[in-house]
Amino acid sequence: MREQFTYDALPGRVVFGAGAARTAIADEVARLDATRVLLIAMEQEEPLARKLTEPFAERIAATFTAVRPHVPTGVAEDARDLATAAGADLLLSIGGGSTTGTAKAVALTTGLPIVAVPTTYAGSEVTPVWGMTKGARKTTGVDQRVLPHCVVYDPDLTLTLPVDLSMASGLNAMAHCVEAFWAPRRNPISTLVAEEGIRALGRGLPAVLDEPAGVGGRADLLYGAYLAGSAFAVAGSGLHHKICHALGGAFDLPHAQTHAIVLPHVLAFNAPAAPDATRRIAQALGRADAVAGLAELTRQLGIPSGLRELGMHESQVDEVTDLVAPGVPADNPRRVDRPALRALIHAAWAGPPPHGSDATSTHQGQT
Amino acid sequence: MREQFTYDALPGRVVFGAGAARTAIADEVARLDATRVLLIAMEQEEPLARKLTEPFAERIAATFTAVRPHVPTGVAEDARDLATAAGADLLLSIGGGSTTGTAKAVALTTGLPIVAVPTTYAGSEVTPVWGMTKGARKTTGVDQRVLPHCVVYDPDLTLTLPVDLSMASGLNAMAHCVEAFWAPRRNPISTLVAEEGIRALGRGLPAVLDEPAGVGGRADLLYGAYLAGSAFAVAGSGLHHKICHALGGAFDLPHAQTHAIVLPHVLAFNAPAAPDATRRIAQALGRADAVAGLAELTRQLGIPSGLRELGMHESQVDEVTDLVAPGVPADNPRRVDRPALRALIHAAWAGPPPHGSDATSTHQGQT
Repeated sequence: MREQFTYDALPGRVVFGAGAARTAIADEVARLDATRVLLIAMEQEEPLARKLTEPFAERIAATFTAVRPHVPTGVAEDARDLATAAGADLLLSIGGGSTTGTAKAVALTTGLPIVAVPTTYAGSEVTPVWGMTKGARKTTGVDQRVLPHCVVYDPDLTLTLPVDLSMASGLNAMAHCVEAFWAPRRNPISTLVAEEGIRALGRGLPAVLDEPAGVGGRADLLYGAYLAGSAFAVAGSGLHHKICHALGGAFDLPHAQTHAIVLPHVLAFNAPAAPDATRRIAQALGRADAVAGLAELTRQLGIPSGLRELGMHESQVDEVTDLVAPGVPADNPRRVDRPALRALIHAAWAGPPPHGSDATSTHQGQT
Repeated sequence: MREQFTYDALPGRVVFGAGAARTAIADEVARLDATRVLLIAMEQEEPLARKLTEPFAERIAATFTAVRPHVPTGVAEDARDLATAAGADLLLSIGGGSTTGTAKAVALTTGLPIVAVPTTYAGSEVTPVWGMTKGARKTTGVDQRVLPHCVVYDPDLTLTLPVDLSMASGLNAMAHCVEAFWAPRRNPISTLVAEEGIRALGRGLPAVLDEPAGVGGRADLLYGAYLAGSAFAVAGSGLHHKICHALGGAFDLPHAQTHAIVLPHVLAFNAPAAPDATRRIAQALGRADAVAGLAELTRQLGIPSGLRELGMHESQVDEVTDLVAPGVPADNPRRVDRPALRALIHAAWAGPPPHGSDATSTHQGQT
């Protein structure tokens, strides 16, 4: 336990289970006494959404399908206009992060409650974070009004999600769970949630790779993504996500691979200053060593061990260092000066994965 | 992970730390923009409350000190009248469960927010449960309005709490954590919280007994009581609390001893049908076996091993069985028919503690 902590617990109802969507969505709409629902779903997912809402089709006042990635402001305005025109009393989003994001954009100005039914491993459905884009500029914010009142998690809805997308989201979730151990608003409860997320994702990622249509692995991955979103919503994120955002933004490197390659390096860097976190991460992964465990998981998922194999040049290491350095989190467990940051990024560029953290053997007693 | 679950997460801000009360109370009053605070504290604790509120004394509009155990309805009415007369915009309770309960009674009708500063290990400050008494009749209910907006936990405020009261509250908290594993609204998150509570209480109970003025043990006990309250607020309680309420109500048996004696028997009864819970409880206690671990903790705390040593007669076993039988929770892990219930209560009456659950060795793989 940390000696001192602050915890801002978020409200929200979660209904989780294979097949849950068949009955829980109708139940939640009824619980909220909604009679004029604005259904939000991407065109491709509209047939699924129609099927799921069929038992209460008479309560669907309007349907918005013009969902676009990153929620362009024009899309948000159209969705808000439709909500007003339809006299909506509830927003029901069925889809991935962009669909949830569109519902959030409407809730932000209208205050309407959201029931979210994720079909991917986004995790954003349990955060009060919203985001919109105008051209290349992204605006984000935090507002309790955009936090869904209820999330219905049904792993069956994710069975057909392509494996590469599943790995990308799952590895981002894993990174959020690991970072929750040293994120700025961490507390013992967000750490418990993150630890459980690592357990679920450590099982789910290889299981889904092995058998994409297996419900057990899909349930673990969805459960892990939910926990990762919950931990992030409370604790925030840290150094790893700063580095990955810079790599993604500057060089458009693929998300899953980038997360998988960078994470063991960040953990190896922080491990000496965060022995308890390192011990708990290892335990949650079911491995003797946390860094080696994460690296082994990366290998299992067939991900290369260095950013150079993704096409990044050595000369770009300094560029990324410059992008990240000004935004290094002040309370990272280990002080991150420029040389240390450059060394970390260079090591992630070069591969191979870092050596084990050895924290389990030397610091086991510290809790 | 359970295959299916529902989780109604409660909002609430918690500030925890030794010495936290010195600054956090003023911070929270300011955060809530309160300028007319109704301070609620028992007469005996008024000097402490004055000291803690001194930095913002000008914001205290009125003080209510006529707190009584179990919140008699007359006391609730007086407190409400004072809140209205003072034009209060915030309720600040500093004290134990009855003080928090009085604040809840005012919030129930006024909707005023509560900042709670517990000085005991009650746990009720994180639940939406209120209770009031009229003569011998107790009315309870659940209402989100009575859930405190913020709880400031400062272990320093509990340093002088008598050891017997500390053990009583701590053991009730332990029982709530254990019961959370099979309580009606349990889910994987409430179980994580309960598990952490068992860890904290398993450390804190013997530590406080050993050194009542030690801040470490007090912090563990307060942290454990907070987690127990949180787990109970979400998951509810089960068979153990049904039995203990009957024993307390019918024979006025002392709370701490009753909880300590009954709990290993309830766990031993449920263990064969709840191997995963039993394994996790053992692990959280740092023992090979959960039942033996709880019984050993009871011994460590110097508590007798049978209810008969508390003055209960064997002839009363049937009376208690009759009181409990109609209210046995339907989803207790193991079916509880009358003979089984009687045998359980008789065993708790007779002592010695039950044999180990042996669940760790035979069911280790089940998660």
